[in-house]
Formats: sequence, structure tokens, C-alpha cells
Amino acid sequence: MSFEEMWADLAPVGRSASSGGYFRQPWTSAETELREWFRAAASDRGLEVEQDGLGNLLAWWRPDGASGPAVLTGSHLDSVLDGGAYDGPLGVVSALAAVDLMHERGVVPTRPLAVGVFVEEEGSRFGLACLGSRLAAGVLPWEKARELRDRDGVFLADALEGAGLGVADSAAWGDLSARFGCFVELHVEQGRDLVDRGAAVGVASGIWPHGRYRFDFTGEANHAGTTRMEDRSDPMLSYAMTALAAAKQARLAEARATFGRVEVAPNGTNAVPSRVTGWLDARAGSESALASLVEGVTRQATERASRDGTSLDVTAESVSGLVSFDVGLAARIAADHATGDWPVIPTAAGHDAGILAAAGVPTAMLFVRNPTGISHSPAEHASMADCLVGVSALADTLERLLT
Amino acid sequence: MSFEEMWADLAPVGRSASSGGYFRQPWTSAETELREWFRAAASDRGLEVEQDGLGNLLAWWRPDGASGPAVLTGSHLDSVLDGGAYDGPLGVVSALAAVDLMHERGVVPTRPLAVGVFVEEEGSRFGLACLGSRLAAGVLPWEKARELRDRDGVFLADALEGAGLGVADSAAWGDLSARFGCFVELHVEQGRDLVDRGAAVGVASGIWPHGRYRFDFTGEANHAGTTRMEDRSDPMLSYAMTALAAAKQARLAEARATFGRVEVAPNGTNAVPSRVTGWLDARAGSESALASLVEGVTRQATERASRDGTSLDVTAESVSGLVSFDVGLAARIAADHATGDWPVIPTAAGHDAGILAAAGVPTAMLFVRNPTGISHSPAEHASMADCLVGVSALADTLERLLT
Repeated sequence: MSFEEMWADLAPVGRSASSGGYFRQPWTSAETELREWFRAAASDRGLEVEQDGLGNLLAWWRPDGASGPAVLTGSHLDSVLDGGAYDGPLGVVSALAAVDLMHERGVVPTRPLAVGVFVEEEGSRFGLACLGSRLAAGVLPWEKARELRDRDGVFLADALEGAGLGVADSAAWGDLSARFGCFVELHVEQGRDLVDRGAAVGVASGIWPHGRYRFDFTGEANHAGTTRMEDRSDPMLSYAMTALAAAKQARLAEARATFGRVEVAPNGTNAVPSRVTGWLDARAGSESALASLVEGVTRQATERASRDGTSLDVTAESVSGLVSFDVGLAARIAADHATGDWPVIPTAAGHDAGILAAAGVPTAMLFVRNPTGISHSPAEHASMADCLVGVSALADTLERLLT
Repeated sequence: MSFEEMWADLAPVGRSASSGGYFRQPWTSAETELREWFRAAASDRGLEVEQDGLGNLLAWWRPDGASGPAVLTGSHLDSVLDGGAYDGPLGVVSALAAVDLMHERGVVPTRPLAVGVFVEEEGSRFGLACLGSRLAAGVLPWEKARELRDRDGVFLADALEGAGLGVADSAAWGDLSARFGCFVELHVEQGRDLVDRGAAVGVASGIWPHGRYRFDFTGEANHAGTTRMEDRSDPMLSYAMTALAAAKQARLAEARATFGRVEVAPNGTNAVPSRVTGWLDARAGSESALASLVEGVTRQATERASRDGTSLDVTAESVSGLVSFDVGLAARIAADHATGDWPVIPTAAGHDAGILAAAGVPTAMLFVRNPTGISHSPAEHASMADCLVGVSALADTLERLLT
């Protein structure tokens, strides 16, 4: 089954008829269907499938005589809410297609290859990005993870039980850096760097530091008609000023700050809210720049809350440091192709590759050009021609690493 | 059954254990239980209960010899999301207790009395305040009302069918101004006017003009990490600035403006939103002041949206003009009590009384002191002593009107 056929198989799964975007949250029917599809596609290729208690999958190609630490490739199948088709699935489908291409080319690996699918990479359901790889790497203990709750208050442990899965035992993964000699993740680009450079594929140099912070503003619920403006403690005003301040500070610092999620209580038209919670997604080129950005936003938010008579709690839900991918590996991947060298570019998006790099696995990423530069949106795109260049580039890369 | 006993009966219905607030949205189990309770309480008093297709209730006291246009009293039983115990139910329970008190006093009405319960006064489910009285008064045609949808997309017509109700035929109500000689609604005060005046009860002079406007800001969903700040079309920023501008303009104009409800799509932490919808609740002392306030907010919102590269649609979901209650009626109610005259005060809260006044029914409202001044919140309160003064004041008022 060709790349095009596989891509057509996945296109309708979890797609909203109204927006054209995807809703593939972990352990929902759409995401479960994708993982079942992957198991079948791997089995069709004679790959042996291994699943952990969280639903992370590894499909193994272990030719006779292959030994030593494995080469790992793959990506994820879940999406953000109303996301695009490419972020995640492109890396998984390309990995399977690259296996086919290596077969066609008669490549005989001397090391095992694993195609991995990590769950909840986006953190769109339980709020913690790269949940699957964090558990596999042992950086998030199960005792803490099981207490995570989704928007409906469902505990992760109960969601897994409902999905027929179990305890996510990171011990089953062993020492990642001993087991895997390297990890290569192919991904759609989430900016316009490759468009500007006129290249179909590129290699990542690293990932910006990134944090998610919950801002809880608490005020006093009251009647929207009868309460004089000066008698209010309205947390919506504190939140609104904070969202504006964050954008302004990020612009000045050439960083990124986004309030893309907000929850209001009681969220009624004729009630001054009692509570407004906003989530800040912040990223910057260095860890000190990120810390300085978040401090600045928190300071302005606290000052405004004080003027509004509201109170503020800031909780860091997740913070990831700077990820530098393996320089030697990136150079080896990027150089000496028939089409010339591939460009090496940084990214401000988090990936499972960042978690594995931090766990000591030499890691690299391949990007495929995205003509819109838009990601996490139905407008996310890559041309079929560029996708096939990506498959070929991934096969070239894996061949270099496997032989 | 005394006022205190009736009040204790209602206290647990629809109450949140965590916040202590009430969730009594129309045609939910809590609100249905309250209406059943009312039917039983009315029947116990020998009042004949009439229900229309929407669930509006009238309990009739028609003593022998009573004739002519009826006196209507009562209020509503639904609440805002996480609302207080008093807004609505206080008027209904006080009306039943006033009937008991008039019986004890040996009052013999020469005109019929009806105790009314209007549904969806708060508009907390279908977004349109005073839905029940609007339909009864014929100012909202059923063909339009049936298409209203709640947050889950349920049509009003389907919600009614699910509740075993039917078509809300305003024809069944006939000409309200011919049928009812007057309407007196008792209500908890939603400000601190009576506290400042040291009075347990007061009489309303009128209701400020009031409108609800939906502000739909549309931008472009995008990745929160990889999209440069200057490449974004982020509707959250346009919304945030608008919420701040509305509060500032209302403060300067001594009016009220509130953004208490917001919905974001896709509402993900790591996605720049594609759409942010905020609802403006605006009220002012005159219709021109209200129009000027809404125009000013819309102008600032439009300018900001243009700078953000987002677009804005403003929809007036409901607008109510100034309501002046019947001056003669208010004077007759307020004067010559054992405790002196009751104060006559305006309010900025909408009520079914406003709809009936506009429909030509001479209308008055009694307010009961609220020590916190807070309403639409679990903190809404009235002392039991003041509630009993309210019952007595309502009985006095009804006696004047019925005999």
C-alpha cells in the first residue's frame, strides 16, 4: 500500500465536516481507530507490534543478523482540537512508506528498526504535551500521571481503563539510550523557513524552551446589571489585560506568548464572573529569555489583579528546557544528497523528539515544507510531491543509520 | 406550610455542593422539580393550576363573587448558572405565603388572584431573558422561539418535547392587559439601595434599558509556538481589548457593561484561536445612553480587530427599552404604612415585570433588602426577618388591589 493510499485511508478519521479540521484526542474513537489502523499496517509489512499500557506503539523490523541498539523513527497520531492532517500522522505514514522503499531498494539493515507511535503528543486532552514519550522516558512517574484529569474531570487512569489499556509502566521501556541508538522524527514544518529557502525538506537543529502556565484569576460573581462598575471584582478584566500584555512582551522580545485557551465561571451573559482561567503558552530562544518573559507577564498580571480587586495564582503546568539535537547526526543526515545539502533550521514547536533527546537518545528531525506555514489548524498543508520527497529523505536517512 | 418551611423545601434543589450556588436551568431536572413543587404547593392551597406549552404556570384563587380583571403576582424559579437562592424563588414563595396570610386575615377578594411562574427568566439556557413572559405577551412569536438553541445545540422545540411540554401558543394567553388588571412582582434587591436607606422593602420605579450583544471575532488558527507574533491574526487580542474598553466606557458613562461569557475555538493551549465570541451585557439610564455605549464599544472593537487582522460581527441578541412602572400604582403601594412610606427606587435588572409592563399591564415591583448587594452569585442573600417583612408587604399590597 503506497503512501498516497495510506494517506487517503486516514483522511476521514476524526475530521469535522464543518471546519475540515481534525479531532483526534487520545483514547477517543478517532484516535483509537488510527492506532488500530497502524497495528494492521505494520502487521501487513511483517513488523512485530509492541504496545505499552498507555497505548504507545512500536512496530519492529528485525531482519536476520540485525543487532545492537535500534534505530527509532515515527511520530504521533493524535491532534490538537480542530487541528491539521499532517502534524503527527505525516511522520508515522512516512516511516511505514520508508520501510517499503528500503525493501524495494534491497536495503539489508544490520541494526533493528522500530517505527514508534507516541500517544498524547499534543497534550490536547490531559494538558501535558508529550505524555507518551515522557512516560516511556521515565521522566513522568505513573503515580503522578494517573492523577491527570481531562476537561470533563476524567482521570487518566480511568480513561485508560475505559480504553482497555492499563498501567503505563515505564520500566517496560528500559533504558532508552541503551535500547535506541538514535531517533529520527519526520514532521511537517510549522513555519515558513523552508518556503523562504525554497527547500522541500530540512533538518532540525533544536527546539526552543517552552512552558505552559495556568493563570487563575479569582474575583466575585455578581449581577451584570445592578452592580456598579466601581463595586466589582471582575477577573475578566484582569485576564484581558494579561492576554494583551503577554502578546506585547513576546513581540518586543522576539519570543512567543499565546493565550489560546480560557475557561470562565459561571460563564453567563448577565453575571460578572467569579473566576477566569487562562493558559499561557510561552516559548523563547533561550531558557533565560523564557523565564524573563513569564516573569514579566506575571508581574503585569499581578499588578492589574491588585487594581481590579481580584487575586491571581500562576501554576507552571509544564516547562521544557532548550533541546539541542545531535549535531553530528544532523550533519550526517543533511549532507551530500543528490539535491545538495538540506538546510538545518531551529523550531519553536515541542516534539517527542525533544523528550527522547533529553533522555540521552541521539535525536534528529526532518521537516517537510508547509506552503502556508500554518499548523495546528485545518489550513496546515504539505503538497503530495513534497511528502514523497520527505519519504525518500527519511528512507535515505534510515539507510545511512541502519547499514 | 409556612414561608420558612417552603424555603427549606427548595434550598437543596439544584444546589452545587462545591460552590453553594444554584443550577436551575429551564427544563433540567432541578427546574422541573421546582415547578412540580409549585403545582403541589398551589393545589394544597386549593388554587387551580394552569400550564401553557412552555411550562409557564398560573395558580388561580377565584373566590365566589370575585370578578373582573385579575391581579397577577409571582416571579420565576430558574436561576443563572451558579446563581443565588433568592432571585426568582423569593417572589414565588412569598406569593404563596401572602395568600396564606390573606386567608388568616380573612381577606375576601372581589377580583381573582393568579400566582404566576414564568420560565427562563434569566435566559441562562437559550440566551434570551424573559423567554416565558415574552411568549405569553406575544412579543416573541413561537416560530422564532422554537429555533433558539442552547449551548449544546438543542433547539427549544426539542427541549420542550423532551420535557413532555409542547408548542408555546401565546394565543392561549389572550390579551394580557384585558385579562390582568395589574402585576406585582416581589424580588430580592440586586444592589445596595435599600441597605443605604435602612429599609427592609422598597418599590420599583422602573427598569433601565438593557441589551445583550454577541461579538464574534474571527482570526486564523495557528501553532502557538512556531507562528511569529507579527504573522498572527489572533482574535483573543481583539476580544481582550474590547472587554477592557467596554468596562472603561461604562465606568465613564455611569452605565454598566460586562463581558461575563466567552467561547473560544478551538480553545487549545498551544493553538492561536480561530474564533473568540464574547457576549456584552450593557445597561444604561436611558435608551440613548445605552445606544451610545454600545456604539462606542463596537467602534473600539472594530478598530482593534482591523489592527489585529481579525474580523468582527456584532449581533444584538436582545434589546429592551426603558420600562417605567405604573406611577399611580407605585404610589398607592408605597404610601401610608404603619412603618411609614416605602422608598421608591430604580433598578438596572431586567424582569418579567418589564415585559408585562410593555404589554400594557399596570405593573409594580417590591424589593426585599439584600445585605450584600450581591446577586447572580451564591453570595446573594436576604435575612429571614426581611423576607417575612416582604411577605407581609406583598399581602398588604395584594389586599389593597384585590378589595
